[in-house]
Amino acid sequence: MTLDTKRAVILLSGGLDSSTTLAIATRQDGYACTALSFRYGQRHTVELERAALIAQQFGADHRVIDINLGSFGGSALTDETVAVPTHGTDEGVIPPTYVPGRNTVFIAVGLSLAEVIGAERVYLGINAVDYSGYPDCRPDYLEAYQRLADLATKAGLEGRGPRLWAPLATMTKTDIVRTALDLGVPIELTWSCYQGLEEPCGVCDSCRIRDRALIEAGAPDLATRHAQRQQAQVR
Amino acid sequence: MTLDTKRAVILLSGGLDSSTTLAIATRQDGYACTALSFRYGQRHTVELERAALIAQQFGADHRVIDINLGSFGGSALTDETVAVPTHGTDEGVIPPTYVPGRNTVFIAVGLSLAEVIGAERVYLGINAVDYSGYPDCRPDYLEAYQRLADLATKAGLEGRGPRLWAPLATMTKTDIVRTALDLGVPIELTWSCYQGLEEPCGVCDSCRIRDRALIEAGAPDLATRHAQRQQAQVR
Repeated sequence: MTLDTKRAVILLSGGLDSSTTLAIATRQDGYACTALSFRYGQRHTVELERAALIAQQFGADHRVIDINLGSFGGSALTDETVAVPTHGTDEGVIPPTYVPGRNTVFIAVGLSLAEVIGAERVYLGINAVDYSGYPDCRPDYLEAYQRLADLATKAGLEGRGPRLWAPLATMTKTDIVRTALDLGVPIELTWSCYQGLEEPCGVCDSCRIRDRALIEAGAPDLATRHAQRQQAQVR
Repeated sequence: MTLDTKRAVILLSGGLDSSTTLAIATRQDGYACTALSFRYGQRHTVELERAALIAQQFGADHRVIDINLGSFGGSALTDETVAVPTHGTDEGVIPPTYVPGRNTVFIAVGLSLAEVIGAERVYLGINAVDYSGYPDCRPDYLEAYQRLADLATKAGLEGRGPRLWAPLATMTKTDIVRTALDLGVPIELTWSCYQGLEEPCGVCDSCRIRDRALIEAGAPDLATRHAQRQQAQVR
């Protein structure tokens, strides 16, 4: 790594979106990336194992930060007394898988690391499908965060603060899958399922949205077994 | 605790400022408080022990969150290769005790907890003496954070999001000491020293600012031994 290497931080959950974002950051934008994952009290940690494998594939450093937001309760992703929804999310309704302020915390840690390692960008896998339901995935949220970041840090005040970068922000899930296929993302390694079973459940909202996109993008063989069975029944 | 108890979250480091803020929140503003402290890789944890004692004195719940920002390096407060300054801080210069993005992370966690427990306010011990040097202690930083918070959370979007509350923001250190004395803060239990020695060093910037304020407020007996010896020499 030379002195003029462009560095970036990326928040990598191990899901399809953040893995595709890592592919864009490294293979398209030419950044040397430090991938940051969080052990925050989620029900399962299979996504962390996948994140490590995916970071390796893209030559990125990988760091896991422990922060037990799950101890607060209040979300289906961390609280086993709240059910994971499988019936789809209505327009404008915030789903129970929303972890209060999770993105705000994660981005703050990403900005801290970016300042320490001199990274130009903090890549985020936030996208349009998510922002119908999650308040902290919307463009005005990101703009407000950029403004805060510029005021918050030594680097920001000196005009060389990191930029929040969300290349998937306006893409559909099907476009994300197409980009992932183009850039050689190992989609079979990515984990988007809300549940921590042996294989993706195929019925939670995250699986359903991903399966539909994989089928639309012409990669039905990468969909969950559940989706493949359903496809076979339709024919 | 009745249903109409007003709840607040407070970020409690165990120092003079946050302890005084807790006194304001409970004894002046009438909130039932949950105090939040962080084990973030600081050189010493004496302040965490003091935070627990102080929370108890004010009948507040106390939670400690582990998040290893120290593993990033870059600050004299977490990195033993960077010296703690003892010579004062020049106007406009950011001191090496600044931990990149620390407040941004801590406030984000405070907001997350506030949403889960239905707290109206997140109290912060940020004050004027600090904001000459630390970028993330200034009023425009807090305003930007409030805007982000309102956009970031379920509660914020519904118009019932927590308010960031910094009652010390415009107070001098001497006024803070006077308020602490008025409200019965156990100043002798609070810990402001940057170093983790047996007793406060009396020479780091934090000790020096605090000692001067204690002496000005007429409580020289609460100053460090170092300051008391210096006072004796002057006489």
